[in-house]
Amino acid sequence: MTRSTDPLVIFTPSGRRGHIPAGTTVLDAARTLGVDIDSVCGARGICGRCQVSVGVGTFPKHGITSSAESLSPFGDVEAGYRAEKGLAADRRLGCTATVLADCLVDVPQESQVHRQVVRKGLDVRTFEIDPIVRLHYVEVERPELASPSGDLIRLYEALEREWGLTGLESDLHVVRALQPALAEGDYAVTVAVHEGRTVTAVWPGYHEDLFGVAIDVGSTTLAGHLVRLSNGEVLASSGVMNPQIRFGEDLMSRVSYAMLHPEGAGEMTRTVRAALKALVTALARDAGIDRTNILELAFVGNPIMHHLLLGIDPTPLGTAPFALATDRAVRTWAVELGITAHPGARAYVLPCIAGHVGADTAGVILAETPHRAEGEVRLVVDVGTNAEIVLGNRDRLLAASSPTGPAFEGAQISSGQRAAPGAIERVRVDRETLEPRFRIIGSELWSDEPGFAEAAAELGVSGICGSGIVEVIAELFLAGVITADGIIDGSLAERTARIVPDGRTFSYVLHDGEPRILVTQNDVRAIQLAKAALYAGTRLLMDHAGIDAVDEVRLAGAFGSQIDPLHAMVLGLIPDCDLDRVKAAGNSAGTGALIALLSATARREIEDVTRMVEKIETAVEPRFQEHFVDALAFPHKRAPFPNLELRVELPKRANADAGDGARRADRGERRRRREVAAASRNRP
Amino acid sequence: MTRSTDPLVIFTPSGRRGHIPAGTTVLDAARTLGVDIDSVCGARGICGRCQVSVGVGTFPKHGITSSAESLSPFGDVEAGYRAEKGLAADRRLGCTATVLADCLVDVPQESQVHRQVVRKGLDVRTFEIDPIVRLHYVEVERPELASPSGDLIRLYEALEREWGLTGLESDLHVVRALQPALAEGDYAVTVAVHEGRTVTAVWPGYHEDLFGVAIDVGSTTLAGHLVRLSNGEVLASSGVMNPQIRFGEDLMSRVSYAMLHPEGAGEMTRTVRAALKALVTALARDAGIDRTNILELAFVGNPIMHHLLLGIDPTPLGTAPFALATDRAVRTWAVELGITAHPGARAYVLPCIAGHVGADTAGVILAETPHRAEGEVRLVVDVGTNAEIVLGNRDRLLAASSPTGPAFEGAQISSGQRAAPGAIERVRVDRETLEPRFRIIGSELWSDEPGFAEAAAELGVSGICGSGIVEVIAELFLAGVITADGIIDGSLAERTARIVPDGRTFSYVLHDGEPRILVTQNDVRAIQLAKAALYAGTRLLMDHAGIDAVDEVRLAGAFGSQIDPLHAMVLGLIPDCDLDRVKAAGNSAGTGALIALLSATARREIEDVTRMVEKIETAVEPRFQEHFVDALAFPHKRAPFPNLELRVELPKRANADAGDGARRADRGERRRRREVAAASRNRP
Repeated sequence: MTRSTDPLVIFTPSGRRGHIPAGTTVLDAARTLGVDIDSVCGARGICGRCQVSVGVGTFPKHGITSSAESLSPFGDVEAGYRAEKGLAADRRLGCTATVLADCLVDVPQESQVHRQVVRKGLDVRTFEIDPIVRLHYVEVERPELASPSGDLIRLYEALEREWGLTGLESDLHVVRALQPALAEGDYAVTVAVHEGRTVTAVWPGYHEDLFGVAIDVGSTTLAGHLVRLSNGEVLASSGVMNPQIRFGEDLMSRVSYAMLHPEGAGEMTRTVRAALKALVTALARDAGIDRTNILELAFVGNPIMHHLLLGIDPTPLGTAPFALATDRAVRTWAVELGITAHPGARAYVLPCIAGHVGADTAGVILAETPHRAEGEVRLVVDVGTNAEIVLGNRDRLLAASSPTGPAFEGAQISSGQRAAPGAIERVRVDRETLEPRFRIIGSELWSDEPGFAEAAAELGVSGICGSGIVEVIAELFLAGVITADGIIDGSLAERTARIVPDGRTFSYVLHDGEPRILVTQNDVRAIQLAKAALYAGTRLLMDHAGIDAVDEVRLAGAFGSQIDPLHAMVLGLIPDCDLDRVKAAGNSAGTGALIALLSATARREIEDVTRMVEKIETAVEPRFQEHFVDALAFPHKRAPFPNLELRVELPKRANADAGDGARRADRGERRRRREVAAASRNRP
Repeated sequence: MTRSTDPLVIFTPSGRRGHIPAGTTVLDAARTLGVDIDSVCGARGICGRCQVSVGVGTFPKHGITSSAESLSPFGDVEAGYRAEKGLAADRRLGCTATVLADCLVDVPQESQVHRQVVRKGLDVRTFEIDPIVRLHYVEVERPELASPSGDLIRLYEALEREWGLTGLESDLHVVRALQPALAEGDYAVTVAVHEGRTVTAVWPGYHEDLFGVAIDVGSTTLAGHLVRLSNGEVLASSGVMNPQIRFGEDLMSRVSYAMLHPEGAGEMTRTVRAALKALVTALARDAGIDRTNILELAFVGNPIMHHLLLGIDPTPLGTAPFALATDRAVRTWAVELGITAHPGARAYVLPCIAGHVGADTAGVILAETPHRAEGEVRLVVDVGTNAEIVLGNRDRLLAASSPTGPAFEGAQISSGQRAAPGAIERVRVDRETLEPRFRIIGSELWSDEPGFAEAAAELGVSGICGSGIVEVIAELFLAGVITADGIIDGSLAERTARIVPDGRTFSYVLHDGEPRILVTQNDVRAIQLAKAALYAGTRLLMDHAGIDAVDEVRLAGAFGSQIDPLHAMVLGLIPDCDLDRVKAAGNSAGTGALIALLSATARREIEDVTRMVEKIETAVEPRFQEHFVDALAFPHKRAPFPNLELRVELPKRANADAGDGARRADRGERRRRREVAAASRNRP
C-alpha cells in the first residue's frame, strides 16, 4: 500500500513513477513500478548488476527535485563492493540504497536486463537483449532429518521464494551436480535458468560469468563470436576454413560427395563438427574464459551446411524439389553437435526458409530487418555461389535464391581468385587513354602511385577477386571498351595496345606482368550470366510484389561488402536506387546469429517471419527466364536507371541505336542466351 | 448431423449409443460416440487393431435387435487381412465395416487403447494401459517445387489431418531419419508419438512392433521384463546379479566405497549401467525382437541404486540427514543411462519418497495400491536389508524405512545363506519330541519322507535361508524350546539331544549332517533385533495414523513371498491381522515399474501419491526406540494377537508369569537392548 504522502520516485529513462514508502530499496521500488532492472545475486550486494544513479537538482520535465540525500547514505555493502569490484562515484547499488525522499533515479543501459546492444561497423545497428539464459543466486534450505525432501525440491522452493520462478524442471546433469554444489557453496548456489523453464547449470556460491557463441557455418569459412550473454560484449571473434572443402569447393560438389559415398554425409558432418569444436575452444582461449562457462550457441548456415551440421543427409537438397528435412528452428544440446561446452549448453539453429534459402538468410533478415521497414521497400541481397534475395517490408516479404554461380567469387574467371592479399580489388580505366590503374588487397596504393611497384613485388599481383572483376568490367563498359551487349570492342585495338586479339574475340590487358592478367570475352560472359541471374531473381520478386523500384538496397556478405555500389549498378547487378541508399551490410548472417544468441524475442520474431515469408522458386517461374535474358545487357535492356544516370554518363546502347531491325537480327543470339540460361539452372 | 431415423448403434461394454448415418464406418461411429477403440494405420485395414464383433439377436437389456446384416458385407480389405494375419470368424475390421442398420457392436478388450492388463500370479491384479507412446501411420504429402516446405512440417500436417495431433516437436534424430524413411516408404511412414507431444521415432511404411522394458534395480538382482507396449504382454523376463556386489554386498558398504574412492560412485554407475545394457540386450534376444524397437523403459530401485543408476553420488545418503538429490520422478533418455535401444527411447525413473524409502517403494505402492483402499487400513511391507513400510488408505498414507539389518536375508545367522538350492526353507518342530523336519529349496520332499536323503545328497543341505530361519525360530517358540524373551531353554537338553550347550548358552541342532546346521542363541537374538525393528516401524506408523490394528497385510519382495504368514505373526514380524488377509505380493516393486511403463495415468498417480505421503523418519522418533524394545519378545510384549491365538496355542509368557518383579529384574537387560538398538541404527 502506498500513499501520496510517500516519497515520489521517478525512474529514467522509462519515466515510470510512483509513491514508494520511505525505506524501500531502489530495487524493490523498481520492481513495484515495473522498471526493468537487473540482478543476479538477489539483493545481496554481490553482483552489482542493479547500479543506479540518483539525479541531483530540479528536473522541470519530470516535475521533481532530487538530491544525493534522497537516498540512504552510502553504506558498508556499497563500500565493500566499491573496494572489491569498483563502483563509479555517482553510482549506488539499487538493492541496498533505500528511498528517503522524492528522487529521480536513472537506470543506465548496463543495469537493464533488456539492455540495448550497439553493433559497431559501417552501419550502426542496435537490438535489445532478451536473455535466453539467466543466472539466479539462491540460498537453499538445508535438509532436515525430520522433513525429508530432495535437495532439488528445496532448490525449486528457493527459486520460487526468491525469484518467483515456478514449474521448473532440470537437466539430469544438474541433479547430479546439485549436491556437490550445495556442499561446496554452503547451501548457496547460482543456477542458470534456460527460457524461464529449465535449470541447465548449477555452481557453488555466487557465479557471474556466462557466455555464448554465435557461429556462421559457411561453405568456405566458419566464423564465430564469443560474447558475454548478459551484455552482448564480444570478447573474441575468429574464423577458420571449413575443412569440408576437401570434399568439394562448392556446395554442389559436397552434395555429390554425399550422393556418391554411402558414409559421405556422415563424414562431412564429423568434419565440420570437429572444426566447430576447435573453433569454440579457440574462441574460449582467446577470450580467456573457461569453455564450461559457455551455455548457449546459435548457428546460421545455408541449407546444405545446416543439414550437415545437424547430421542430416543433404542429398534431397541436390535434386528437385529440393526438399528440406525441416525448415523450423532447431533447439538441441551443444553436445549433440559434438561441441564441448557446459554440459547443459543449448544450441539454437535458426530456421531455414526454402530449399535454397537457408538459416543464413534468416540471419540476414534478423540483422537487416526488411520485415520491419514501414512503407518503403527494402532489398537485401547476399551474394555467394547462389544469391539469396529478400524483398519487401512489414506488410509483405518475399525471398528467393538465384543461381549466380561462382563468378562473383572469382571462380570461372580467367585470372579470378579468392579475395586474398595480392588480388586486384579496385580498378579505374581512363575514359580517354583506356589505361587502367588498380589497387591490390594488402596495399592502399594505386598502381600509378609511387611505391606501388615495391608493394606489388612484396605481395605479388596474383589475379582479380570478385569485386575487382565487377569494377574492371564496369569501368571498361563506361569507357566504351565493352558494349552494352558485353562485347569487347576489337576495333579499339587500333587506339591501344591494351586490346589484344584472343582467338576470334578480344581481351583487355589489365596487368602486363607475371602473371599477365587479362579480362577475356569469356570473363565478361561469365559476369553477364551471374549478374543476369542476380538481377532476374530480384526482378521476379519485384514482379510478385507488384513494384518497379526499391527504396533501399543492402548488400550482405563478403562480396557485398567489397563491391562499390556504383559499379554494381553500372553492371546492373541491382535495380536502380538512390545510390546513397545502397549499403554494404557486412556479414549479416553472422550478425543474425549473434542477435538470436542474445534474444528470445528475436528468435520468436525470425520464426514468425520465416513462416510467413513468401518463397519464390525461380526454377518454376517462366518470367525468371525472360528477366534473365533481358538482364544480360549492361546495365539492363529494359530497366531505367535514373539514379545511376545522375552519377555517370552511360555509353550509348548499340542495340538501342540499331532499333527494331537490330532486335530482330538479335533473335538468334537471344535463343542462344536462353540455352545458356537453361544450362545455368543446373543448380544449386 | 444425425437424425433419429438413422440406425441406432450401441457399443458394448461402454454402453455408449447414438444414431449414426448409414454408411458410416464402425470406427468413425465409435469416435463420434467417444468409444475407446484402437487404430495405428488410420483406417487403412492394415493394423487390425480396431476389430469388433456385431451382436446377433435381440438384446432386451439394450433394447435393440442386431444381426450380421446390420453391418456391410465382409469385404475385400477384411478378406485380405484374414488371409494375411488371421481374423476370427465373428470379427470385423471397424475401419472398413459400415453401419447399415441398428446394431450392437462389441469392442473386445484387445481393441481398446486403454485395455486392461491382468497380471498372472498369486494375486490377480489388473490395471489399465494408458500408452506413453503411440504409433501413428500417416501418408505425407510429397514436396513440390512450387511450395517449398520442410518434410517435417508436412509430416506434422499429416499428423494433424489424420490424427488431430497438434503442437508436436521432434527429436533431432527423427529429423535425420525422416527423409530416408519417406523415400523408402513412398511418403508413408509410421511415427511414435511420446506423451502426445514429441515424435521420437519414424519408420518407413507401416510399423507395428513397439516394446518397453521395466527393470527393478535391486542391490542384489537386476530384474527386467520386456513387454509389448500396446497390450502389456510380457515377452521375456530375466534377472541377473547386480555386479556392484563386488563393491560391497550391502548398500552401506557401497556408499562407503563411494565415500572412500574419489571415482567410486562413477565406477559403480558404469558397472550397473553395463549390466543393465546387457540385460536389455538379453531380454530382446529372448523375446526375439530387435533392440531398436524398444522405445520406453521404466526403473525402480532403492534410493542408493536410484542415485547410482542416474549417476548421482550416493554419499549424502550415507549420513544424516540422508538427503536425496531429488525425490521427483526423472524423465530422461535411455542413452543417457547407457542403454542401447531405439535412439529416441525414453527412460522413466519412479519418484523416491525419502532418504531410505526409494523408487522401489513407489513401485510397491503402485502395485499394491494402499492409497486406493477405502475405509480399511492396508499395511504393505517390503523386507530387505531395510524394511520399507507403507500404511494407510485413500485418506492418508504413511511410509517409513526400518533398519532390520540383513538377518532376514540369512546374513548374520550362523548357518544362514541366500535363498538358493539346498537351503532349508520350511521347518516344523514336533511339539512333543522336539524333533525337526524340514524342506530344502529344490525339493518338494520333507526331510522325514522317503527319497529325501537322495535329494539332499544331490542338492546338498547347505544352510538356512531367511524364511527358514523365521520358521524354525517360530516353531521352536511354539514348541517351548525358545521362551518369549528369546532364550533357548537349556533345561530341555535333558529331554532331547537336539539341545546342546554352546559356551554359556544353548543351541538347537536342526540338521546333524555335514555341515551341521545349528540354531544358536545369537541367531535368535539377530532375528529378535530384525523383527523388533520391523514391528517398531509398523507400530510407529500405526501411532501416527492413530490406529491399533490393520485390516490387510501385504508382504512384498522375495522374503515376503517365501515366509509363511502364520510364522511371521508368531514371531511378531507383523501386527495382528486376520491371517486370511495376510498375503504375499511377490516382486511388487517390479510390478510397479511395469505399470509405470504402460500407463501415463499411473505415472501421474504415483507422482501425486509420493508427494502427499507422510514420511516418518524412525531415527528421530523416540517412540521408535520404545516400540523396538517392547517388540523384542515373541510375539510382542504388549500387543494382543487375537487372530493369531485363533490359529495356534501360544506358549505362556515367562515374564508375564513372573509379573512386575521380573520386569524390574529385566531392567538391566532392557538397557542392554536399548544399546543394541542404538547400535543397530548405524544405517542404512
